[in-house]
Amino acid sequence: MSKNKKKEQFFVKQSEDFSRWYTDVIQKADLADYSAVKGCMVIKPYGFALWENVRDELDRRIKLAGVQNVYFPMFIPESFLNKEKDHVEGFSVEAAVVTHGGGEKLAEPLYVRPTSETIMYDTFSKWIQSYRDLPLLINQWANVVRWEKRTRFFLRTTEFLWQEGHTAHKTFEEAEAETLRAGRMYRDFDRDVLAIPVILGQKTESEKFKGAYRTISTEALAKDMKAIQAGTSHNLGQNFSTAFNIEYLDENNEMKKVWQTSWGVSTRIIGTLIVVHGDDKGLVLPPRVAPIQVVFVPIYRDDAQKEKVLAKITELDDNFKSKGIRTKIDDRDTLTPGFKFNEWELKGVPVRIEVGPKDVEKNQCVLAVRYSGEKSFLPIEEVKANIEETLDSIHDGLLKKAENFLEEHLLKTDSYEDMVKFIDEGKGMVFAKWCGDHECEKKVKEDCKASSRCIPINENGLAEELKDGKCVICGKPAKYDVYWSKAY
Amino acid sequence: MSKNKKKEQFFVKQSEDFSRWYTDVIQKADLADYSAVKGCMVIKPYGFALWENVRDELDRRIKLAGVQNVYFPMFIPESFLNKEKDHVEGFSVEAAVVTHGGGEKLAEPLYVRPTSETIMYDTFSKWIQSYRDLPLLINQWANVVRWEKRTRFFLRTTEFLWQEGHTAHKTFEEAEAETLRAGRMYRDFDRDVLAIPVILGQKTESEKFKGAYRTISTEALAKDMKAIQAGTSHNLGQNFSTAFNIEYLDENNEMKKVWQTSWGVSTRIIGTLIVVHGDDKGLVLPPRVAPIQVVFVPIYRDDAQKEKVLAKITELDDNFKSKGIRTKIDDRDTLTPGFKFNEWELKGVPVRIEVGPKDVEKNQCVLAVRYSGEKSFLPIEEVKANIEETLDSIHDGLLKKAENFLEEHLLKTDSYEDMVKFIDEGKGMVFAKWCGDHECEKKVKEDCKASSRCIPINENGLAEELKDGKCVICGKPAKYDVYWSKAY
Repeated sequence: MSKNKKKEQFFVKQSEDFSRWYTDVIQKADLADYSAVKGCMVIKPYGFALWENVRDELDRRIKLAGVQNVYFPMFIPESFLNKEKDHVEGFSVEAAVVTHGGGEKLAEPLYVRPTSETIMYDTFSKWIQSYRDLPLLINQWANVVRWEKRTRFFLRTTEFLWQEGHTAHKTFEEAEAETLRAGRMYRDFDRDVLAIPVILGQKTESEKFKGAYRTISTEALAKDMKAIQAGTSHNLGQNFSTAFNIEYLDENNEMKKVWQTSWGVSTRIIGTLIVVHGDDKGLVLPPRVAPIQVVFVPIYRDDAQKEKVLAKITELDDNFKSKGIRTKIDDRDTLTPGFKFNEWELKGVPVRIEVGPKDVEKNQCVLAVRYSGEKSFLPIEEVKANIEETLDSIHDGLLKKAENFLEEHLLKTDSYEDMVKFIDEGKGMVFAKWCGDHECEKKVKEDCKASSRCIPINENGLAEELKDGKCVICGKPAKYDVYWSKAY
Repeated sequence: MSKNKKKEQFFVKQSEDFSRWYTDVIQKADLADYSAVKGCMVIKPYGFALWENVRDELDRRIKLAGVQNVYFPMFIPESFLNKEKDHVEGFSVEAAVVTHGGGEKLAEPLYVRPTSETIMYDTFSKWIQSYRDLPLLINQWANVVRWEKRTRFFLRTTEFLWQEGHTAHKTFEEAEAETLRAGRMYRDFDRDVLAIPVILGQKTESEKFKGAYRTISTEALAKDMKAIQAGTSHNLGQNFSTAFNIEYLDENNEMKKVWQTSWGVSTRIIGTLIVVHGDDKGLVLPPRVAPIQVVFVPIYRDDAQKEKVLAKITELDDNFKSKGIRTKIDDRDTLTPGFKFNEWELKGVPVRIEVGPKDVEKNQCVLAVRYSGEKSFLPIEEVKANIEETLDSIHDGLLKKAENFLEEHLLKTDSYEDMVKFIDEGKGMVFAKWCGDHECEKKVKEDCKASSRCIPINENGLAEELKDGKCVICGKPAKYDVYWSKAY
């Protein structure tokens, strides 16, 4: 949709100016564009196809867990948002407010949903009457709005797309189990679909969701050494069931309040995979969600050669398509192969296959792997037989590369000086002990602009309290291990 | 989610009170519920699963036509809506207006999109520069808001879900072809997926989309004898490309304005299939979109029988699932088979299979078809072998039934008296000639509350002008044949 000319323009190297690289690459790779509405972006066909692949696979996993999709109104009466005090403090300031509808001033202003707890839970109080109605497991794919002063494509936009799961249970334990299930689902999805290694841990009190009993999150490390939250899952306790009076008659004919959870992943995950995998040449898309998994570039000098080469490519393409692989044949006549190579590298296509006249004679092709830059001459029949394994091994290789990066940029230390220096110099994430006092979190923020990302959780999903050790900041007895980092 | 008790409650027969039947059935079948926000509904899991099946199949067809999905902001600056004068008249009065964001009054109010022409076309003017950028073919699945005074589940809600296709072309002819392609896609989808026979025709000037050059629509006939619009496709001409300055450099280096189309189908289609297929017993869902295509009801008196019966059912269920058929085994112990029959009939499940102990011995089952009420004893192996054909024949039978209904309730007449009487008495739709004067449309509205639904189109998609005949209303020379009817 944008002009070829634009694509030829230089874009800054990731290593030189990460922030500009990010914005440039997204526009030049045709993922998204600015819009006329401040803070809102347009998701272009290539970007939306990527989101659809992410969404469809996550949706499949959500449904496998027995959660059903629904749709609730995007408008929330002002009085609803006010019912849970922490929640309203967290969200009302960043809300968009509808004051007029159908040409008249509304009696009560409506908030465009920043998240749907309040509008959903009002209805839950009608739906849930007996223990037979529990657990209630629902999910919604929707647009939400949080007014943002400073916005960035995908990572922080005023309007964004997401899924929000909302569940209600008989017991605290069931809600805990669901919170953990969702958190682990995100961790597995990040790793097995997006090739992103994440840390699954518990947020500190100051970083948890406004209105939650506790929040667990998956945290990835971007190439600019900032942590990025890739999904959150909240045990809401009975905070909302108290505010919205969600009660059920239990097996013993007693009225009880339900225990709830909510969990979500947004279009921010697209930003996440860009900052985790991208490189100087542009996007590096994980093969399981890439809109185009294999691009074919024919090499030819005349029409006769073109015909021969395209016949061979079509043979390969038919074979791949029959296996459900997403392909593209770039047979544009007006562009050189070199130009095409750059463009598909910029767009992050995992595999490029080049076929020239000599390759046709030898029944071979060149297979280039985007993330590693490796190029190999391979027999056509071998490529056909192995394409699915090739894509799987690219997934594994990309994941391994990101795991190594995370490991190389994680400092475990007991020295506050080393911690601040490491973070300040943009070397990565720090793992260090903390007393549990918010004052120490504030000091870290002041000293190196880092925040507590999460507290590691054990097999049972709990943030285990330490028995010894000292807070890296104040030296008092440590309560938790904590991952510290600058963050998006 | 709602209590069994509620489902046992009487609901009014369709033949007695259509309007109440509609509202009752939707709630009792768990398709949707009222919400706390006036005019907005909650789409429940069963209703949303139905919508997902509709959406996914339509999305597949849209993509097959080479149209790509995108996402644009839900907010539209007030000034944008004002750029096309017919369009703003049509939509500004029913808009929801955001006046505050992030705690501050906005410099310019934002409209929540009632449709996305204006916000998209502002961007199109950037994306389209050369003839190489054309045609531009995009689609968006989104929520839209039109402030409604009187609302009804699915048929008319303040917020609703839809897809909106938007295309830009080099010539008027290409835009015509796309308008027609989309209209025919809807007609085929209605017929081949929803088993709804529709009339594809052109709207009169007064009924066309505000801002369009011409609108074609698919019109179905509900069982209460009202027509219902099931999809619309607009040739926008150059109205918006003029207002938004969408120009391209053609092959001869001349600046030209593009020709555009837009087309859409909304959650209203769910209401449409209910009012077209439903009956006294509740919903009748077309098998190709039914969330549950086959429900199994085991018949047993004790645990031993239950085990035997469920083993046989599981054998059938495994077979069906391996064919991709959507099934449900209703093994609830607390309910009688009769209660279950009623519930699944209310929910419109196309096929019910009953298996009792004697059936297991004889290796047979009872297969009941929802739309016809037919029940047959069939050998298990036959049911296994034929289930896909059975579902196809149910689709065909349901379509045939609806086609017969449409035919039986269509009066072709030259008598205005007969026309008014037929419509007034709720007998159906009328096919009669019209002079083309809006005054005659107004008179019909006054006399029997009917409107012009559409003008039939020929093979080339054009509303052909008549060479003879008189307007059924005023007696002047007729210009077009027209379908007339009360409408939703």
